[in-house]
Amino acid sequence: MTKDIVIIGGVAAGPKTACRLKRLDPKAHITIIDQDNLISYGGCGIPYFVSGDVSDEKELRSTSFHVLRDTDFFHNAKGVEVLIRTQVRNIDRRHKQVNFTSLDSGVEDSLPYDKLVICTGSTPNNPPIPGSNLAGVHRISDMHQAIAIKEKLARGKVSRAVVIGAGAIGIEMAESFADLWEIETTIIEFMPQILPKAIDPVFAMMLTHHLQEHGVQVLVSEGVKKIEEAGGAYKVTTDKHSLDADIIIMAVGVHPRSELAGEAGLLVGAQGGIIVNNRLQTSDPDIYAAGDCIEVPHLVSGEKTNAPFGSLANRQGRIVADNLAGIPSIFPGVTGTFIMKAFASCIGCTGLSLEAALASGFDADSVITAQSDRAHFFPTQAVIPLQMVFDKRTRRVLGVQGFGPMTDAVLARIDSAAALIGKGGSVEDFSNLEMAYAPPFSTAIDALNATANAADNLIDGRLRTVNFDDFMAWMDKPESRPDWLALDVRHPSDAKLFKDKFQGHWLTIPYIEVRQRAADIPADKTIIIICDAGTRSSEVQCYLDSIGKTDSLVLGGGFNIMRRIAPSWWPS
Amino acid sequence: MTKDIVIIGGVAAGPKTACRLKRLDPKAHITIIDQDNLISYGGCGIPYFVSGDVSDEKELRSTSFHVLRDTDFFHNAKGVEVLIRTQVRNIDRRHKQVNFTSLDSGVEDSLPYDKLVICTGSTPNNPPIPGSNLAGVHRISDMHQAIAIKEKLARGKVSRAVVIGAGAIGIEMAESFADLWEIETTIIEFMPQILPKAIDPVFAMMLTHHLQEHGVQVLVSEGVKKIEEAGGAYKVTTDKHSLDADIIIMAVGVHPRSELAGEAGLLVGAQGGIIVNNRLQTSDPDIYAAGDCIEVPHLVSGEKTNAPFGSLANRQGRIVADNLAGIPSIFPGVTGTFIMKAFASCIGCTGLSLEAALASGFDADSVITAQSDRAHFFPTQAVIPLQMVFDKRTRRVLGVQGFGPMTDAVLARIDSAAALIGKGGSVEDFSNLEMAYAPPFSTAIDALNATANAADNLIDGRLRTVNFDDFMAWMDKPESRPDWLALDVRHPSDAKLFKDKFQGHWLTIPYIEVRQRAADIPADKTIIIICDAGTRSSEVQCYLDSIGKTDSLVLGGGFNIMRRIAPSWWPS
Repeated sequence: MTKDIVIIGGVAAGPKTACRLKRLDPKAHITIIDQDNLISYGGCGIPYFVSGDVSDEKELRSTSFHVLRDTDFFHNAKGVEVLIRTQVRNIDRRHKQVNFTSLDSGVEDSLPYDKLVICTGSTPNNPPIPGSNLAGVHRISDMHQAIAIKEKLARGKVSRAVVIGAGAIGIEMAESFADLWEIETTIIEFMPQILPKAIDPVFAMMLTHHLQEHGVQVLVSEGVKKIEEAGGAYKVTTDKHSLDADIIIMAVGVHPRSELAGEAGLLVGAQGGIIVNNRLQTSDPDIYAAGDCIEVPHLVSGEKTNAPFGSLANRQGRIVADNLAGIPSIFPGVTGTFIMKAFASCIGCTGLSLEAALASGFDADSVITAQSDRAHFFPTQAVIPLQMVFDKRTRRVLGVQGFGPMTDAVLARIDSAAALIGKGGSVEDFSNLEMAYAPPFSTAIDALNATANAADNLIDGRLRTVNFDDFMAWMDKPESRPDWLALDVRHPSDAKLFKDKFQGHWLTIPYIEVRQRAADIPADKTIIIICDAGTRSSEVQCYLDSIGKTDSLVLGGGFNIMRRIAPSWWPS
Repeated sequence: MTKDIVIIGGVAAGPKTACRLKRLDPKAHITIIDQDNLISYGGCGIPYFVSGDVSDEKELRSTSFHVLRDTDFFHNAKGVEVLIRTQVRNIDRRHKQVNFTSLDSGVEDSLPYDKLVICTGSTPNNPPIPGSNLAGVHRISDMHQAIAIKEKLARGKVSRAVVIGAGAIGIEMAESFADLWEIETTIIEFMPQILPKAIDPVFAMMLTHHLQEHGVQVLVSEGVKKIEEAGGAYKVTTDKHSLDADIIIMAVGVHPRSELAGEAGLLVGAQGGIIVNNRLQTSDPDIYAAGDCIEVPHLVSGEKTNAPFGSLANRQGRIVADNLAGIPSIFPGVTGTFIMKAFASCIGCTGLSLEAALASGFDADSVITAQSDRAHFFPTQAVIPLQMVFDKRTRRVLGVQGFGPMTDAVLARIDSAAALIGKGGSVEDFSNLEMAYAPPFSTAIDALNATANAADNLIDGRLRTVNFDDFMAWMDKPESRPDWLALDVRHPSDAKLFKDKFQGHWLTIPYIEVRQRAADIPADKTIIIICDAGTRSSEVQCYLDSIGKTDSLVLGGGFNIMRRIAPSWWPS
């Protein structure tokens, strides 16, 4: 018996569902409905199209073998029908049909369904800022916006850009403006850091500094009050600044596009996403949903979350197709794995940040390391700071963050961490994780293993750390904490600048001399132990503990992190 | 109470045990005994020192902060004593003491122990080949050999090298000769492929071809009969060739150095390694062992195995130290994770190869894919062939192999696979593994996810493949199987050369026209479906099945693999 399958939405989850289902059940009659004329595109590629890395928008709508994914392609190659420029008015669940209107002809029509799949995606958030709907304000919501932005850039009319919102899309857009078009670019973020919630402050600071080094102005803790037209250009007014701009990108997040589902009486969750079970079935068993428009369980927090990623949309589309074809596949949930390029660096994470873990009620803490991605003697080695978030009671790893150069070194650690975190991996699992080792790729104790080892030491009380906020505040004003004394165990040539600048607050004893010169370390101060990666400092702390000098704190990740945060106090 | 800890072996597991234990138990009195004067070195870095990537051998013996790890370093920085050039004669378990001889003075002495740790490493295999002990034949067993080889190269006396054994070390040495010293280099392997057992034939062929492209002669299925001196140089005679060489590397594997343990009555396993429990305790509870000298359980096969890797030695050293200090850490076993660089490429694996899985009694099969490492529209994208080995009955993933360019793209997939395989991950776990996605790093459905999807399809009978051996044999002699017909669904411009060469055996229908032109496909032949990555072919197979043409096979990984194997039949 032929089944009528209707899919609303033709970008990622929709086409994936259709194509997989057609392979599983070749007799299925499948129709995708989309309000746009451009379908099945890689929306995540938009910043690279805008930057010029990708020269033609058609590349984002083509297969890997360079065939355009248009309605003809779906008909001829896939056996799937697509109605474009067609707006669904409502879902009539009682009669099991979808009612729609052709946006070109205005003609109303309907399609019956045996099973319906809702893949309506997400809508950019639109904060109530006066002027936010002016022609110069763009959202990265679809290909048309991308094409419009690129055309504007190509006409050479843009020399100043303002990006509102420092999430991944905002930062990627800022990069594409500043890097390839040499546009004076500012990012404005309402929260006190870029990439809020996903990334903890130290890692956000490293990326902020990197953006600044590449000429992007980053304004945090700053709200946009209004946007005005001004002589062919625009003026963006915040609570602190006024900025001139030729183009403005509004990238303050997205929310699930669940209105159709809600109006049809399907359950919609507190986060605004359509509620589905682990077979991705909505509250109506004949209706499935996938992609940005649904809520999914977070595998670490256990909480429902929105996870608007093209990769998840594709995985979910496959699972919907399986279930429609009678294969009981399940979608277990998300770990929140994320990575992005920014100029010569990349930043990534999986699981929960420390902030998010604490907010979810975990007995959470974290460690930061800053070790080499490959053997220290291998010419291409680079430092990759990592942060591990864990539950001190259960020793479960809750999250990992990484920052590094624009290679796949951070990707390798984030992907492996995602695999273990998705399986409930413990700190011990991470210590023993058998990363591939050869000097051109890793170190004998991989940076991720080493980070787990640091977590193990911290949980068991063998490592006590100072956080960067406190340390930086002290660096700004050492006299504010006269009970603190820095113990710099690096080579004297590295330590000298600091010793000179922080006279009376900065003791330098090279690591290899600590055992011999321990008597020089005063017993009446809190010793802040500093090195480059944190490793030597940890060892020194163990030793000081063993001789009864137990009042010390380690700066985890040490100067390898400080160098990447580069605050104003850096001696010159 | 002070504990006397004696550690035999000062390269990797030994120093790691000592340093970790000293931190956990600062009062422990720890002595490392080693017969060499050079200790605590990164033996895996030897090929990079020989090649010149690493200019000074001291870099392999230094910390990441550039301090030489000699006896003074261990004494001053670590509080650990090291006796170098000291040979242990025997272990007197009854009196709990180690008897040794100073190699310089000849003086005999002994040290009592409360706990003993054996980290005696491994010994290079030494096949009974006449002439294998000539001065020109080197083994990569220690730093002295490395220094001797490098000196010989630096004197410019080497223009022809023969490497016996095509394991990782042999291939790395061949690369270091050919790449930086431009030495005419030949590898000879007794087995029918390079990297035997670890890597399946198709992946070994890709690496073989890459080595050949870089000027290395690769001889497989070839045994060395003798080595002779000949006028200041050497002659290597195999059962097929006679090769002149100025230097010869013997790299035919290693075996555990367990003689001391065995003579002391400790249990030694069938593989020659010291038997330990998961706390790394030998059959004498006061004696632990770690590193190359022990047997460990393989987490996939369940069998005992030798796993001589510096990374494992370090992890095991940490676990021994924990247990000596009263922390009940366990070493769960190994997944056999491996990666290596070879010229502009890298190859890696984790878990079992298909050959090994079948030998271990699994109901094993495998799939090969050849997809992009990052978005096809991203400028730096490259194809990374992957092979997944799985058990058809339980759907457990048993192994993953990868080949790709010299980036960390393969590393990322191998490391994540290692994490899941170590946790008993299934094909579904791999399909849903939440790899980090952004176009500069990956594809919406990551190559590893896609490989799992192919495995899922194969297990469920939706994908039937032809193996490369059979396909290549047919390409060599199409008339040998007149029942086969190739169906090339690539773009006609790609297919034309083959259509012309294989007239009558090669049907070309572009992927997007298959549904329209299905009548052109004969029903009385086995259709071998071919594309670049295997994806289109799989789709076409589904479609042909749906119209009753069920006699077809897909060439998984398609021409992206064929191109990398580049056999002689390639049309020109």
